[in-house]
Amino acid sequence: MTPRILELRQGLLRKNDQEAAVLRERFRAAGVFVVNLVSGPGAGKTRLLEWTLRALTQRGHQPAALVGDCETDRDAQRLAASGAPARQVVTHGVCHLEAAMVARHLDPWRLDDLDFLFIENVGNLVCTTAYDLGEALRVVCLSVTEGEDKPLKYPALFHSADALLVTKIDLADPCEFNRDEAARSLRSVRPGVPLLETSAKTGEGMDDWLALLEERRALK
Amino acid sequence: MTPRILELRQGLLRKNDQEAAVLRERFRAAGVFVVNLVSGPGAGKTRLLEWTLRALTQRGHQPAALVGDCETDRDAQRLAASGAPARQVVTHGVCHLEAAMVARHLDPWRLDDLDFLFIENVGNLVCTTAYDLGEALRVVCLSVTEGEDKPLKYPALFHSADALLVTKIDLADPCEFNRDEAARSLRSVRPGVPLLETSAKTGEGMDDWLALLEERRALK
Repeated sequence: MTPRILELRQGLLRKNDQEAAVLRERFRAAGVFVVNLVSGPGAGKTRLLEWTLRALTQRGHQPAALVGDCETDRDAQRLAASGAPARQVVTHGVCHLEAAMVARHLDPWRLDDLDFLFIENVGNLVCTTAYDLGEALRVVCLSVTEGEDKPLKYPALFHSADALLVTKIDLADPCEFNRDEAARSLRSVRPGVPLLETSAKTGEGMDDWLALLEERRALK
Repeated sequence: MTPRILELRQGLLRKNDQEAAVLRERFRAAGVFVVNLVSGPGAGKTRLLEWTLRALTQRGHQPAALVGDCETDRDAQRLAASGAPARQVVTHGVCHLEAAMVARHLDPWRLDDLDFLFIENVGNLVCTTAYDLGEALRVVCLSVTEGEDKPLKYPALFHSADALLVTKIDLADPCEFNRDEAARSLRSVRPGVPLLETSAKTGEGMDDWLALLEERRALK
């Protein structure tokens, strides 16, 4: 990058950091636990969220979801079918969510009424990394269909995770996915955070995922 | 985006377009057919290329590959095992390849000796779209593991394709992938270009892929 572009980018990121700090304080004051869910495209974030919104509602929580995509509101429609409030952020070609986009889409909700807010980011293993959305927990997902070495090839994003989810674990065998090798890759880039293997299809690992969410919310 | 950022971005893209035009002329003069292979992370581009490099070599062609990743030279190592020349472009966090990066990595090769050059882009369904690399053919891959509606959610990239490959078709059943729905999505965003279903694991569709490459090279 040229120095001029770099300087502008750093200015934009500083502005985003400030807006994220305002959001974080707003979320804290409202008592809503915010999760930023990040992965490459097609790692199963929406299906994970469908399951999670239903399960948290059944346990008496009030979850909601904001979902980012370049175009269409398909994912918000899928998520709304869970019964929880869901809104789409259409980025019109922008490759990541920013704090200001999140702030603009909160208005119709009373945050005080929510326990959990899930922000499903645009599918992107690079550009989502630097944008803080005011979240309390950043969860980075690696699908078994993507290969074990993605964390080594996209280390910055995986390193920014507060928790790591291996998704679609039900497909591990047909994908010839090596769970140990993937865990080593993930651990080498991001040691010391929870690492869960999950399937929103079979339910494997999903109780641990819910427990993680409830524990972290209780800590806040 | 702010007007200032937008203007700078347009300037960068114009510069890239100029560098790509120089590359395209250089490739044409050398008689090398250049393919820019783009997809989200983990759609199987490297495995497709391993197969393709071997098969083209067996048919008497001289293929080579440049492969982009944010970090590591793992993919170049995998591709070099095919016997064809392969070089890694490490972008250090940049989320796409640019024409200047390609130009910088061509030096050790005599382009005149090559028939095909495959450029495996960084795994990204957004940011790769606007960067012309001087290619003769842009191939956009959709893996069956990613879901049928990705073309609708990331239309700009799919719309820029000269050919569409559905990859990992051997996993269609375990992924409950709806081939007709995917084809409708792809066709709605990008009608009128070849659409192939392939598996570099079982070989399904790979003869058609090779035929497409050889036909297009003969046309140039």
